[in-house]
Amino acid sequence: MPRRKATPIRSDMGWSTADRISVKGLDLPSEILGHLSLGDMAWLEIKGVRPTPAESRIFNALLCTLVEHGMTPFALVTRLTYLGAPESLQAAVAAGLSGLGTTFAGTAEGSARMLQAVLGTRQAPKACDDLPAAARQIVADHRARRASIPGIGHPVHKPVDPRTPRLFEIARETGFYGRHIELMSLVQQEAERASGKVLPLNATGAMGAILCELDIDWRLARGIAVMGRAVGLVGHIAEELRNPIAKEIYERVEDEASAHARPDVD
Amino acid sequence: MPRRKATPIRSDMGWSTADRISVKGLDLPSEILGHLSLGDMAWLEIKGVRPTPAESRIFNALLCTLVEHGMTPFALVTRLTYLGAPESLQAAVAAGLSGLGTTFAGTAEGSARMLQAVLGTRQAPKACDDLPAAARQIVADHRARRASIPGIGHPVHKPVDPRTPRLFEIARETGFYGRHIELMSLVQQEAERASGKVLPLNATGAMGAILCELDIDWRLARGIAVMGRAVGLVGHIAEELRNPIAKEIYERVEDEASAHARPDVD
Amino acid sequence: MPRRKATPIRSDMGWSTADRISVKGLDLPSEILGHLSLGDMAWLEIKGVRPTPAESRIFNALLCTLVEHGMTPFALVTRLTYLGAPESLQAAVAAGLSGLGTTFAGTAEGSARMLQAVLGTRQAPKACDDLPAAARQIVADHRARRASIPGIGHPVHKPVDPRTPRLFEIARETGFYGRHIELMSLVQQEAERASGKVLPLNATGAMGAILCELDIDWRLARGIAVMGRAVGLVGHIAEELRNPIAKEIYERVEDEASAHARPDVD
Amino acid sequence: MPRRKATPIRSDMGWSTADRISVKGLDLPSEILGHLSLGDMAWLEIKGVRPTPAESRIFNALLCTLVEHGMTPFALVTRLTYLGAPESLQAAVAAGLSGLGTTFAGTAEGSARMLQAVLGTRQAPKACDDLPAAARQIVADHRARRASIPGIGHPVHKPVDPRTPRLFEIARETGFYGRHIELMSLVQQEAERASGKVLPLNATGAMGAILCELDIDWRLARGIAVMGRAVGLVGHIAEELRNPIAKEIYERVEDEASAHARPDVD
Repeated sequence: MPRRKATPIRSDMGWSTADRISVKGLDLPSEILGHLSLGDMAWLEIKGVRPTPAESRIFNALLCTLVEHGMTPFALVTRLTYLGAPESLQAAVAAGLSGLGTTFAGTAEGSARMLQAVLGTRQAPKACDDLPAAARQIVADHRARRASIPGIGHPVHKPVDPRTPRLFEIARETGFYGRHIELMSLVQQEAERASGKVLPLNATGAMGAILCELDIDWRLARGIAVMGRAVGLVGHIAEELRNPIAKEIYERVEDEASAHARPDVD
Repeated sequence: MPRRKATPIRSDMGWSTADRISVKGLDLPSEILGHLSLGDMAWLEIKGVRPTPAESRIFNALLCTLVEHGMTPFALVTRLTYLGAPESLQAAVAAGLSGLGTTFAGTAEGSARMLQAVLGTRQAPKACDDLPAAARQIVADHRARRASIPGIGHPVHKPVDPRTPRLFEIARETGFYGRHIELMSLVQQEAERASGKVLPLNATGAMGAILCELDIDWRLARGIAVMGRAVGLVGHIAEELRNPIAKEIYERVEDEASAHARPDVD
Repeated sequence: MPRRKATPIRSDMGWSTADRISVKGLDLPSEILGHLSLGDMAWLEIKGVRPTPAESRIFNALLCTLVEHGMTPFALVTRLTYLGAPESLQAAVAAGLSGLGTTFAGTAEGSARMLQAVLGTRQAPKACDDLPAAARQIVADHRARRASIPGIGHPVHKPVDPRTPRLFEIARETGFYGRHIELMSLVQQEAERASGKVLPLNATGAMGAILCELDIDWRLARGIAVMGRAVGLVGHIAEELRNPIAKEIYERVEDEASAHARPDVD
Repeated sequence: MPRRKATPIRSDMGWSTADRISVKGLDLPSEILGHLSLGDMAWLEIKGVRPTPAESRIFNALLCTLVEHGMTPFALVTRLTYLGAPESLQAAVAAGLSGLGTTFAGTAEGSARMLQAVLGTRQAPKACDDLPAAARQIVADHRARRASIPGIGHPVHKPVDPRTPRLFEIARETGFYGRHIELMSLVQQEAERASGKVLPLNATGAMGAILCELDIDWRLARGIAVMGRAVGLVGHIAEELRNPIAKEIYERVEDEASAHARPDVD
């Protein structure tokens, strides 16, 4: 007989019986369906309560920010996977999501983590009297380690990432423009000053700061990108059904990549 | 030199320049952020235009239906993957989505396909004067092949899946209760009559029928589940951060599964 | 208290204690490491015993058949995912594997299933006196349903898929050329005769037939491709590290796909 | 017209024409099938040449080390995913691989990186006259950062991980016991001395050291685990087909996790 002592397993996500389905304490049919939007449902899943109208507005703005950015590597991955397994739409989206790592999406996480390290969270706030000094410290630390500052800089969107001022505007309108955003903005200014380069505060940096204002754990920052991109990748499959391009992409690359070696190529 | 003749690659999902980001013809910062919810964005991605209020209400209800159903296999998969790779939240969600196949989620697809085969789509409608006869034909065909009818029957939610009457109610309120839903309901009645068993019209069957009313390709039906579940699986990671259970689950199973063979177990 | 009655969970894959690790009844350090190759280990995992030299030779040949086929969609997916998440090599390979569905890899499964439906398995053999008649029946059934025959035909490798005669040669040399291979070959001849087209017996068809000779369940046929491709996709990451091409592929596609809409393109 | 300047795309993995398939310069049918095992093929994919018998022996031992370790989280993930999508075996294996992150599998990578930082690679060797001093430095650095040393320590296999002495024995027999292994062993001794705890050199640490001896880039270390585990996860699906346990696991957890909230539980 197994000798391991079990500890209880408990979850408060929801439960169901023959005639009821409960999600986070709400009755799914009568209290969620027809009442909550998908974005509000995301808030409920993470926060455990329904969002206020202001929370709903800023949170849905965050969720919509990364849904679609044209023919990204993730979109290509989803389309190429769908080409091989059209019976498994879910696997094509899953494959596309798998690339949302440090290169493109991890920076919202990084900037939220950086800001929470200085200012803490609502449950565990940290005192910080001098935001400009904190910003200088952050920039100096990253420069000493020759590390890029998460949320700062963009290869295309410069001198300004057009999403950032708009997100901050919505943060102001909804009452969520606070010290985390201030610190992030100071970090950007200091980074430009210290480096002498044009370094915009990019959309993931803005998202990281706003997530802190919403008191969401930095470890969930990547989840915002994941929820949004899942929506966008289904959109790419919808277009691939109407206008398939994955096969052409694959055949072009295959043809060119091996042309130097193939005996049937002159 | 490669000799393959290239055909052009074109996408209308969106584009970006240094100072602009366009999604489906809308300016992301000024026309989407702060204006669209994530669910409405999903409609834009699939349909190419913003939803009307009625479309938004019924579509968000569909999207919310499958977000959360407690400790499903997918939720377990996401939590167990996160245990092994906490640095890759995206991979944990991707792993969870990979199981949204024929067993649990494929039936919305199947019922939408079944209904579109009889009634067609808006672009290519099919004439069908006698819905009850069509329902009898569908049930007879499936019974002859000993195949289960997609969208009919549920192991737990019976005699009624509580999500179905609510989804149909919202369909009525928003003006989307049409012939596809009628046919689906007739199929359910005929299935019960012919089998003599209690066979509820389940939530995925209801979703399949409503998707047809919204004129969405049956091949995208699984995408509705995928978008919703991506949201729900991030929710499970949020709970796992507060109350981790994956390690206990794994250790219990490992302990029990090998107890018969391990020399250290009496 | 939960009221569900538990049934026992048991596995015979292996177990470990503080000083021992056992896999399928063998001591991992002393009986596997240094003694078994990865391919033989795969046989042990599936069959529960070590392969004979003949089994090892034919099975490793099967495993090697699909490891590498140049710049396939799967290889592109792995490289593009690695571009986004270089910290998660495992996710890049996982994404690449996700596309091994019906389009390219599912046909080994299909042909093994087709052959086992006629001839059964070692545990449950089926009588079949007239293989040519069975082949005619299979081809006629598929033609009536306008379905392609799994394992028959290839867009590039014709009139002969060069892997097929070699695999059958190894099957002969190792004593595994039996009635399943015979039937598969008859199906190919009949398919060409009935259609009047050149329809080679492709590599996945040959693999499906040989899997039957090795008495492996058709539901595991796709697993042979998965194990081989996992190896090949790691190889593509090794090349991507030396000679990165994913970024160029993505940027080219992005540039071309949106050129018709971007205001910065003349 | 797109204005981006393309750089050429080139790959040397392989190519195919109507009658030939070439992999890394070898003719697949005549030079690989029947000649190379899957493990040797893995070497060819990574190294570009066939292994010597000694290289084959030690490399296959590495590949076999992590194939199977009983009911791991990865095995559970694969089985639970297969439960939901039995038509997509590839997605079930992919989901299982997704969890091979920092917690369990990333340590081979970490130890190889740590050793290559001191001793370099064959192409770029670094001088190091005093291995014991280097080991002391490594341990001191990790202790100062309160970081665990990759490859050192194991929750179950202590005081000795039984795989480690066996792998090092094979390394000696094949002529691959060199300075990277020496340094790794010194690190383990110093770690135990400095901490006063029992800290075995675990299997992934041994693998990391041997990978350095084989002059394989640390960034591919995780790939060894991935190739092995892909094989093991197919093995778990093979057992799940004969003896399904995923449904029982899921139902048990679901039942227990929500029992405190469900109205149908007393």
